[in-house]
Amino acid sequence: MNPAIQDLYPPDFAHCFGCGRENPHGHQLKSFVEGNEVVARFTPSPHHMAVPGYVYGGLLASLADCHAMATAAADAEQTAGRQVGDGPAPRFVTAALRVDYLKPTPLGSELEIRGHVTERSAKKAVVAVSITVRGTQTVSAEAVAVRIPKSMESPL
Amino acid sequence: MNPAIQDLYPPDFAHCFGCGRENPHGHQLKSFVEGNEVVARFTPSPHHMAVPGYVYGGLLASLADCHAMATAAADAEQTAGRQVGDGPAPRFVTAALRVDYLKPTPLGSELEIRGHVTERSAKKAVVAVSITVRGTQTVSAEAVAVRIPKSMESPL
Repeated sequence: MNPAIQDLYPPDFAHCFGCGRENPHGHQLKSFVEGNEVVARFTPSPHHMAVPGYVYGGLLASLADCHAMATAAADAEQTAGRQVGDGPAPRFVTAALRVDYLKPTPLGSELEIRGHVTERSAKKAVVAVSITVRGTQTVSAEAVAVRIPKSMESPL
Repeated sequence: MNPAIQDLYPPDFAHCFGCGRENPHGHQLKSFVEGNEVVARFTPSPHHMAVPGYVYGGLLASLADCHAMATAAADAEQTAGRQVGDGPAPRFVTAALRVDYLKPTPLGSELEIRGHVTERSAKKAVVAVSITVRGTQTVSAEAVAVRIPKSMESPL
């Protein structure tokens, strides 16, 4: 199996609340290359609710966000002629995020989060993300990912 | 002092992970009418990080989201000729959310979240939100809020 992209982030960038392997309080989202897409699966906890029975939109935005950054990282590696896992994954951060809640997302089932890059340049990528539950897409998102600026590379 | 708008949501709609008074695992954001705006203040926990030193973008999206729904609720009450607190606050849910991360948001300080309605109709409002920390705006967001549909009004 491919490694999770987030598990290839350098240790200093592995504390993200959404996807950092070093953040025990966080969601620890893990995204994998599958064919031409990047895919993550996540089952929200019962307390991740908006109103009873439905997933909290802020969690869905968070999952789309972290998944988009991982998708951008995988795409950057592939565009550079490397395979994901050949070395540390480049860390992208979010410049903009747009989330369309197409339908309420029911709680209690695994979510499938899929991403692919729609535009790329040396320092930036635009990533399209879908979230599907029980076979129905409930969320469409788009994120602008940029290579982490030097100013954010402070040590712990 | 005015009541928090989220504390006026009916009990069935008070479990939101971002702002529900009945969700002990959640952020419990509280938004208040102040003059012509709605304002919330929130200090992220140390584990709410993106990379060391900076606030997680998914949390910022979540705060903007819940604050926008509260802003729409307050505006709907005022547009109907009522004061916030005269009765239960109407519950809006998010149809779309756009977040622009203008600058990295430093961890360790209180965030000030401000919202106001820019467009309104009987069932919908568009809300502009800003997040400021240490006197500098770091996030600009816009949310489309809609009155909660009957299909989401299921009991616990």
